Amino acid sequence: MEKFNASISYDQRMWDADIRGSKAYVKALEKAELVTTEEMNSILQGMDQVSQEWSKGAFVIKPGDEDIHTANERRLKELIGVPAGKLHTGRSRNDQVVTDMRLWLRDAISVLTENTLQLVSTMVERAAVEIDVLFPGYTHMQRAQPIRWSHWILSHAVALSRDVDQLQEIKRRVNVLPLGRYAVNTRPLLAFDDISLNSMDATGQRDFVAEFLFWASLCLTHLSKMAEDLMLYSTKEFSFLMLSDAYSTGSSLMPQKKNADSLELIRSKAGRVFGRCAGFMMTLKGLPSTYNKDLQEDKEAMFDCYDTVHAVLQVMAGVMSTLKINQSVMEAALSPDMLATDVAYYLVRKGVPFREAHGMSGKVVVMAESKQIPLNQLTVEDLSTISPLFESDVSSVWDYRSSVEQYSAPGGTAKSSVTAQVEQLRNCRTQLPFHK
Amino acid sequence: MEKFNASISYDQRMWDADIRGSKAYVKALEKAELVTTEEMNSILQGMDQVSQEWSKGAFVIKPGDEDIHTANERRLKELIGVPAGKLHTGRSRNDQVVTDMRLWLRDAISVLTENTLQLVSTMVERAAVEIDVLFPGYTHMQRAQPIRWSHWILSHAVALSRDVDQLQEIKRRVNVLPLGRYAVNTRPLLAFDDISLNSMDATGQRDFVAEFLFWASLCLTHLSKMAEDLMLYSTKEFSFLMLSDAYSTGSSLMPQKKNADSLELIRSKAGRVFGRCAGFMMTLKGLPSTYNKDLQEDKEAMFDCYDTVHAVLQVMAGVMSTLKINQSVMEAALSPDMLATDVAYYLVRKGVPFREAHGMSGKVVVMAESKQIPLNQLTVEDLSTISPLFESDVSSVWDYRSSVEQYSAPGGTAKSSVTAQVEQLRNCRTQLPFHK
Amino acid sequence: MEKFNASISYDQRMWDADIRGSKAYVKALEKAELVTTEEMNSILQGMDQVSQEWSKGAFVIKPGDEDIHTANERRLKELIGVPAGKLHTGRSRNDQVVTDMRLWLRDAISVLTENTLQLVSTMVERAAVEIDVLFPGYTHMQRAQPIRWSHWILSHAVALSRDVDQLQEIKRRVNVLPLGRYAVNTRPLLAFDDISLNSMDATGQRDFVAEFLFWASLCLTHLSKMAEDLMLYSTKEFSFLMLSDAYSTGSSLMPQKKNADSLELIRSKAGRVFGRCAGFMMTLKGLPSTYNKDLQEDKEAMFDCYDTVHAVLQVMAGVMSTLKINQSVMEAALSPDMLATDVAYYLVRKGVPFREAHGMSGKVVVMAESKQIPLNQLTVEDLSTISPLFESDVSSVWDYRSSVEQYSAPGGTAKSSVTAQVEQLRNCRTQLPFHK
Amino acid sequence: MEKFNASISYDQRMWDADIRGSKAYVKALEKAELVTTEEMNSILQGMDQVSQEWSKGAFVIKPGDEDIHTANERRLKELIGVPAGKLHTGRSRNDQVVTDMRLWLRDAISVLTENTLQLVSTMVERAAVEIDVLFPGYTHMQRAQPIRWSHWILSHAVALSRDVDQLQEIKRRVNVLPLGRYAVNTRPLLAFDDISLNSMDATGQRDFVAEFLFWASLCLTHLSKMAEDLMLYSTKEFSFLMLSDAYSTGSSLMPQKKNADSLELIRSKAGRVFGRCAGFMMTLKGLPSTYNKDLQEDKEAMFDCYDTVHAVLQVMAGVMSTLKINQSVMEAALSPDMLATDVAYYLVRKGVPFREAHGMSGKVVVMAESKQIPLNQLTVEDLSTISPLFESDVSSVWDYRSSVEQYSAPGGTAKSSVTAQVEQLRNCRTQLPFHK
Repeated sequence: MEKFNASISYDQRMWDADIRGSKAYVKALEKAELVTTEEMNSILQGMDQVSQEWSKGAFVIKPGDEDIHTANERRLKELIGVPAGKLHTGRSRNDQVVTDMRLWLRDAISVLTENTLQLVSTMVERAAVEIDVLFPGYTHMQRAQPIRWSHWILSHAVALSRDVDQLQEIKRRVNVLPLGRYAVNTRPLLAFDDISLNSMDATGQRDFVAEFLFWASLCLTHLSKMAEDLMLYSTKEFSFLMLSDAYSTGSSLMPQKKNADSLELIRSKAGRVFGRCAGFMMTLKGLPSTYNKDLQEDKEAMFDCYDTVHAVLQVMAGVMSTLKINQSVMEAALSPDMLATDVAYYLVRKGVPFREAHGMSGKVVVMAESKQIPLNQLTVEDLSTISPLFESDVSSVWDYRSSVEQYSAPGGTAKSSVTAQVEQLRNCRTQLPFHK
Repeated sequence: MEKFNASISYDQRMWDADIRGSKAYVKALEKAELVTTEEMNSILQGMDQVSQEWSKGAFVIKPGDEDIHTANERRLKELIGVPAGKLHTGRSRNDQVVTDMRLWLRDAISVLTENTLQLVSTMVERAAVEIDVLFPGYTHMQRAQPIRWSHWILSHAVALSRDVDQLQEIKRRVNVLPLGRYAVNTRPLLAFDDISLNSMDATGQRDFVAEFLFWASLCLTHLSKMAEDLMLYSTKEFSFLMLSDAYSTGSSLMPQKKNADSLELIRSKAGRVFGRCAGFMMTLKGLPSTYNKDLQEDKEAMFDCYDTVHAVLQVMAGVMSTLKINQSVMEAALSPDMLATDVAYYLVRKGVPFREAHGMSGKVVVMAESKQIPLNQLTVEDLSTISPLFESDVSSVWDYRSSVEQYSAPGGTAKSSVTAQVEQLRNCRTQLPFHK
Repeated sequence: MEKFNASISYDQRMWDADIRGSKAYVKALEKAELVTTEEMNSILQGMDQVSQEWSKGAFVIKPGDEDIHTANERRLKELIGVPAGKLHTGRSRNDQVVTDMRLWLRDAISVLTENTLQLVSTMVERAAVEIDVLFPGYTHMQRAQPIRWSHWILSHAVALSRDVDQLQEIKRRVNVLPLGRYAVNTRPLLAFDDISLNSMDATGQRDFVAEFLFWASLCLTHLSKMAEDLMLYSTKEFSFLMLSDAYSTGSSLMPQKKNADSLELIRSKAGRVFGRCAGFMMTLKGLPSTYNKDLQEDKEAMFDCYDTVHAVLQVMAGVMSTLKINQSVMEAALSPDMLATDVAYYLVRKGVPFREAHGMSGKVVVMAESKQIPLNQLTVEDLSTISPLFESDVSSVWDYRSSVEQYSAPGGTAKSSVTAQVEQLRNCRTQLPFHK
Repeated sequence: MEKFNASISYDQRMWDADIRGSKAYVKALEKAELVTTEEMNSILQGMDQVSQEWSKGAFVIKPGDEDIHTANERRLKELIGVPAGKLHTGRSRNDQVVTDMRLWLRDAISVLTENTLQLVSTMVERAAVEIDVLFPGYTHMQRAQPIRWSHWILSHAVALSRDVDQLQEIKRRVNVLPLGRYAVNTRPLLAFDDISLNSMDATGQRDFVAEFLFWASLCLTHLSKMAEDLMLYSTKEFSFLMLSDAYSTGSSLMPQKKNADSLELIRSKAGRVFGRCAGFMMTLKGLPSTYNKDLQEDKEAMFDCYDTVHAVLQVMAGVMSTLKINQSVMEAALSPDMLATDVAYYLVRKGVPFREAHGMSGKVVVMAESKQIPLNQLTVEDLSTISPLFESDVSSVWDYRSSVEQYSAPGGTAKSSVTAQVEQLRNCRTQLPFHK
């Protein structure tokens, strides 16, 4: 039962947050004249010593240290004796746990923000360099229209920039002090933005954890989607790109194989992290209000999601900065039938309503198929049996690069549009929150 | 297969968003000189007629109308002929679907914001009126310390105010126009705040839906928690409150029973809604990028979560505005052992470190138990065997009302603190986003 | 609130189960002498008339008919008057609901069993016909070793046969009568296998629903996996197969496109169904024992999962019976490097330990790559620089068909092994439960 | 990346399964004449030594030991040299991983079966001893009808007996050997019941893990439900029972409190475990067929669910064998209004149809309420104003014990019925699978 109850095996990683929280708290107690200046100094020095023990790996966990708070309190008492007992005046274990978690998560969010921005930056700079590479855009896993490879990269970078944006909002809700009684004095010392509005809500809610877990799930869903694309593009059949050896592994049975293990692991982690979110939501959902021990499930979920997202972001940055693309194969994958929409627009420009033009273009596709030749080898004569509007200027349609350049509106595939996306995302770091 | 593929049975409820979107789009096409003014007017008039048919319930869905977009387009063509075919110039079905969903959800979020604010308001005003009622605060489902009934109400209202806050952020991310090509002109006509940064991301992402589904889940988790408390308080054993007949039902077998069906249904809905979120996340997670038909799962999930939250918020507002509390039973549930913490603070005020004082207070509890009398019937003599610091002024401790008044910091249980919470939440509506 | 509470909009589909249940119940009441034979006959005749009204679509739901049980009871009373009131002697609404659900689900399971067996049969017969087609087996989405196309088909059929097996076990737990008081007499009339062991458990548990929802999730995960493979194989890049037009759709924008919408929808449904499972589990998890109104969430989840699995199984059977494979492309996708494992086994047969042989074979792959020739164009001379054991008989390795024939153990890729799988799965129907 | 990829930190707990699997495999290789008897003996002895190192805690994990299989193989090679390389002939890492997992899980299931049976037994024996204690049965958390306390205990024991039943079926599907090539010889050595039907399915499916995770979820949902009841019953307001000190903890702030931490932890774990199930299902759902590295998520989920269920079952057994009930409070909680159904049956016995009798009994309840007296203090005169059928023999209704004795059908609350349940559950162990 003791083992079932204890959390020290995992919550010890909050040792620093716990000490910082206690140091601020004792200062607030001194201001409130609940401890003397001398007692405060004694507690502060003791806490500094506990801190040093942790950072040196010298802290010894003893039987009975059921959580990090008990462990630090026990050690403080060993070091400074009686005054240690004053530290917890007006502070419940529940207040303390939530304060520590909020401090810890606030720092964790800063790290993840930086990781995500690094990955975005890696992607954006790659997009800037390889802006002239064309390849097929896909929908329904079928070749659709020619796009820039950079457009594909940026479609994923944009999703990650939304993740950064959303994470800053969560941080705002994390950065609220729950320590009721002396909160007014404690708040500035710990750089919290705000104080909880209601003490029962303060200790009994874990919305900030739930929000973070869901954020992690959505972020990893983005990376899973990107990994799925990359895996597809690195199959033998697509051969658009090749992962560096550092991010691939061989087979124990088949000497010729090179597997994209890094991407498969990234893909898998979205499931893991959402599982943590689902599990914690289910636990939360079954509760009445205020603190119940069930809430102890919060920490392992939070730590695991942080560790997982942290690792995935770094691995994906490694993958994206080292993979090699195969430009000739990518461009060879473009085929004239991918310009069928352009054929329709050719007719639209000559006054045909789009739906009708779409129908005619469809007939062009069928004609080429039945003649077993590419679209661009149909003669003007062939085409004019479908519509007399086809003239020799139709030849201008058969150019992938000008096809891509047509989409020059914001968010489009034209070089100017893609360059504008690059610029916007480069500013992402300095303009948080980014999407206003 | 056709039935498997079609979405008209549920997406028809976006008919108005679809028409509004098309009307704005045709205006942008006219500006871009892709339709003439005359064609535009014809399309606008046709669309108005389609709109009237829907609002009168006169629109007839025909075989082949696989979704609301096809249905409106087909009807428009019947009404105005050829020019209808120009409406879809440069707009894919996927652009259109996402635009419609974003318009629909933006309105839906406004409704839910209003519903939530109404419920908060109902709760806050009740809290203002019943501020003098005391009853036990619980942790671990065990009586902990005396609190104000209003403090309990506000602990839930604060959670809902966070929901309102978060929903406004989601609205900001919903209110982005994905319609690439003529978006610059279309955006102001539809009052979108922004334009998608990347066209592939624009049609292939459903983050705004996922965020909304999770929001609904967390919001209903709050209401489930509140319902659980209310159910507990309305058991025979607690008897703190009684639901009005409109929100209770009888038993088909047991004539004496009155069941809190409304609260049980509310409690159940958090599961339902999170299930939608989990299901959609699982579908999203398995996808490569850009549009895949799998995304069609987005709409039923979005509608069902909206409908459910909409209903739950209204039912809870009904429950909270009609339930009757039983003040005498609530106050009779307070017992002197709930003042054990106050006994400890009595000693702290006399200079005993908190941890030591907590230990002494624990001995007081044991002494009272062994003598089988309430705490406040222990004599000063009895108490002084535990600590000589107990003196006749200990009698001041045995007062529930002054116990509650001790917590006068922000978020506390003192009348002034609770009144301040009431004021803050009253301002919630006018200060969106509320938690800055 | 009434609307929030009512279930008639969806539970009316259990009308037949409800009537069958009541008819059996009244017979048990007559045996127990709680109704006279005359009253019983009157109730039976009334119920038959209600049944006819439902099957003709003539039953009129009236305000106040909150669920199917109330509706049928109300109608019966209108038809036969006073004796109708005797039908509910000793039977609570909760007993009745659970009985109806169990009857309904038992039938539903029979239908799904048949659907799954049909799909398995379609697949097995296709595997039998196309047994001589070879193509690459993939692991990690990378070409691994040559296999039979039929081996791939059967790998999915085997998973479905496990689903059938598991579904029969669930049926066994569904087929238990919860109607306590006169259950001994009612059971044989409704062909239930068993009677609930404990009356509180009988009305308060929905394990049989939860099990079914999870079964649906796992079954659709199998079909999603198969759909994913098929989508991959039908990309332009793989071109192994082509869906029939009935199971594909065109694009509103791109005339050349043919999208595998049927497969994408199948892939998406696993998410939907698991969402129902997750949602219901979350609702269940938050409950105390016995009946709580929260359990009303059981029916929509059960119906939706049934309908979804029912549709998916039929669509997949359609897809599998109509798709065309492109044998020449499939076989052209085989390449000599996929025989690298065979090279290793060539050396193993000459006495080299497998790990060492694997290393040598790896060197062979590298050599071929550096010479930019296929493995089978390396000369014996080339090979002997890696190991002197390579001799002219190595030429026998370069044959895909004999490579596949090596795996003649149960479950292997040899023709005999695949034929044995076909036989076993053909017997699946007659040997339920199949996997003993 | 290496750290991201490695699984040795958690999969080392399968060391014994891995060694047993390899020992059987080498014997099969010898039979197939792929290793000599001497080589086999060398491998067997080496493996025994590796086994001893693990069991003594002397095995040293080295850099490069990415998983337990690599670690054991590396160590074997260090110990016996070249022949070690022969062990992996015809066996891929994927075959080996699945075999190890199946061996490990088979044993784990045996342990959990025993744990569950122990808990059932604890509960059943307590039910046998306390069979004469009556207390209120609840539905909708409201007092419904009098029941035996043992009936409540058994309602939960019956759910657990279903868990045992279902677990045996899962074991049957776990106990299948995936090791293709030499499976026929390996199977009996490892006591597997069957061999996989298809080699691709064998290495690429993890249904047996998914099934186990769901089983764990449903089992813990049962225990959460039971914990919820027990927590309710141990509130001050119910006061039906008291947990032993070993399963409760005090408060850091409130000296008088005793919290049911054990039960709250049990309640929370259903969420955790279902989260693992949801996470793994989401990972599985996004995959094409055959082995993908994503499947590596299987092991942590499996281990965590096993450990959690293992602990929960033991803690619950501890709780149930040590709690004390408060019989007098339980029986005092019975009140005459809980006999309203009995009043209705009194009238039914006099020929009134149940629905009508239910209505009259409802009037009796209202009359008692308006007179503010208990039901049993209404005079025959009072009652006869509602129906002339009320006579002096109505006094026989006001007896809780005879009320309970009425339900003497199987699964009922009569002493004979409860005793029969006790007997059936006592046989549960010897009659696996129990529910036929």
